[in-house]
Amino acid sequence: MSPISDINKESLKNNFDVVGIGNAIVDVISHESEQFLKEFGLIKESMALIDEKTAIDLYNHMSPTIQTSGGSAANTMSGITSLGGSSSYIGKVRNDHLGDVFSHDIHAAGVHYSVKPSEQGQPTARSMIIVTPDGARTMNTFLGISTTLYKEDLDVSLIENSKVLYCEGYIWDVEATKDTIRSAIAIAKNAGRKISFTLSDSFCVLRHHQDWVDLVNGPIDILFGNEEEIQALSGCGSFTEAVEWIKGRVEIACLTRAAAGSVIVTEEKIIEIAAKPVEQIVDSTGAGDLYAAGFLFGYTRELDLETCGRIGSIAASEIIVHTGARPFSSLKEIVSSELHS
Amino acid sequence: MSPISDINKESLKNNFDVVGIGNAIVDVISHESEQFLKEFGLIKESMALIDEKTAIDLYNHMSPTIQTSGGSAANTMSGITSLGGSSSYIGKVRNDHLGDVFSHDIHAAGVHYSVKPSEQGQPTARSMIIVTPDGARTMNTFLGISTTLYKEDLDVSLIENSKVLYCEGYIWDVEATKDTIRSAIAIAKNAGRKISFTLSDSFCVLRHHQDWVDLVNGPIDILFGNEEEIQALSGCGSFTEAVEWIKGRVEIACLTRAAAGSVIVTEEKIIEIAAKPVEQIVDSTGAGDLYAAGFLFGYTRELDLETCGRIGSIAASEIIVHTGARPFSSLKEIVSSELHS
Repeated sequence: MSPISDINKESLKNNFDVVGIGNAIVDVISHESEQFLKEFGLIKESMALIDEKTAIDLYNHMSPTIQTSGGSAANTMSGITSLGGSSSYIGKVRNDHLGDVFSHDIHAAGVHYSVKPSEQGQPTARSMIIVTPDGARTMNTFLGISTTLYKEDLDVSLIENSKVLYCEGYIWDVEATKDTIRSAIAIAKNAGRKISFTLSDSFCVLRHHQDWVDLVNGPIDILFGNEEEIQALSGCGSFTEAVEWIKGRVEIACLTRAAAGSVIVTEEKIIEIAAKPVEQIVDSTGAGDLYAAGFLFGYTRELDLETCGRIGSIAASEIIVHTGARPFSSLKEIVSSELHS
Repeated sequence: MSPISDINKESLKNNFDVVGIGNAIVDVISHESEQFLKEFGLIKESMALIDEKTAIDLYNHMSPTIQTSGGSAANTMSGITSLGGSSSYIGKVRNDHLGDVFSHDIHAAGVHYSVKPSEQGQPTARSMIIVTPDGARTMNTFLGISTTLYKEDLDVSLIENSKVLYCEGYIWDVEATKDTIRSAIAIAKNAGRKISFTLSDSFCVLRHHQDWVDLVNGPIDILFGNEEEIQALSGCGSFTEAVEWIKGRVEIACLTRAAAGSVIVTEEKIIEIAAKPVEQIVDSTGAGDLYAAGFLFGYTRELDLETCGRIGSIAASEIIVHTGARPFSSLKEIVSSELHS
């Protein structure tokens, strides 16, 4: 594809519901057997960071692939616009083919995205995602140029004018982008905005354990994580204990449990939300990202927390019945037909 | 992705069941409303040839896309290997990103592919495929470098040593590749091999009507086409008349009718094959290509024609329940479990 012009299906707004910050990644997805994971020593359902050489080697052994834009926070921002909300994205690509693909797709989703593609340095990030027959995804990510998202790339007024800042835990894996996130959090906090954060991956939690406990005890207002991630963060042996641990540390914790639904924890209450059942999980990539999109869409509309969680479940259910982590259908239409059914 | 080495999951064989020749294309797929087709004046379910500028313009207006290798004959060859057969492919890409994607995917599918990527000229071909909510696909193809597949690119001994030559009608749209196909047909015919041909698209049939009637009356042994295509070729007002028209002109005609199944026509008999029902058609791209794969897999194993058709139906049913025209699952396993059920 050739470079994308500044098309944006939603006209630029002065205020956004959410601004997301994360690694700008193109997903390279193939369907493989469980045996494939064993042969390559891949830890099922985790995200491993790999270098460019390993990325090429793995790609050369993968079955035919599908390439489609990903990146956890970018998926979430695309979900918010699909629901009818407004969102903006901060993340860095190179001016190469995959960078063009990423830019096209995020603009096409109606997300405001104005970080200029880098004209030098490493290539655009890609994640080799192995989907096994049970729909589970195992990710192997080469971060490339996304590791060079610096404070200078932040649009201060954009962050100040968005109701919620959404930060991807994955971005903590690199020293430079960690500083960028800290700056973004400080800007949003000073402007009186809400800070939301996703724990991303249980191994990622373990790599940054103390930092993240400090974040949870500090600036984070809304925390997203799954069962394994919150247990890794809390150090608790059971989910019930982890729920007690997080209670009151953040304003709201949204804890997802795959088919078992999700639990929304505040200082006052614990709300259980059922997962929306699906016939068959084709590819679970993006389930957590879209749950966060649904929740934040509801939250920025000041809906009650149970409804926010239900929108999250509906959005997640759309993403897991097809390959790729961006919605195929208008989530707005799906939610409006299903929310009251 | 970086250039793919000469990996090939199937070891190179001296003999192939089928060698396919066609336009080497990467599919760029998005899901859009019926309204989108109207706005861009696209004729639903047809294939339109577009220039590079139009391709870029259309892409800029498409929703987030999925990119995955396509090309009608290439899809068929990938289907044959997934069924457990052996196949080879002839088609041309550039040494660019999409060319790398195409090469990776066809090698990863175990198809023998040895045409060197061109180091100059136009970019690799891409088809912008608009999938509407009913699963129908409307294709807009920029042929790029695929139009420069010359006689010199043909591996004569490869064609001589493959049981069946499979030619894509689409390739007839360009003068140079038309000559290449004629040469390939002559080589295969001289070696006593079977010639199969797919009508590809009803508009394509109309563009090349007399040439293709001559081919059908001449060298073609096995013809593939759908209802609209065979009516366009025969000039008959009904499918029944078209069946009578084709009878005896080719050894075998396989005529597909979407949900109504397929009809196999020989001089002696007409065999009706039911379509394998699916819950929901997500993307019909590749249905005809995979039907041809299943039929030719059975044919080259000398199975009876009804079984060949049933394998075609099963292979087609796998491809239409997900986005993209290459199988996600082993067709060999699906066929072995379903053929006798």
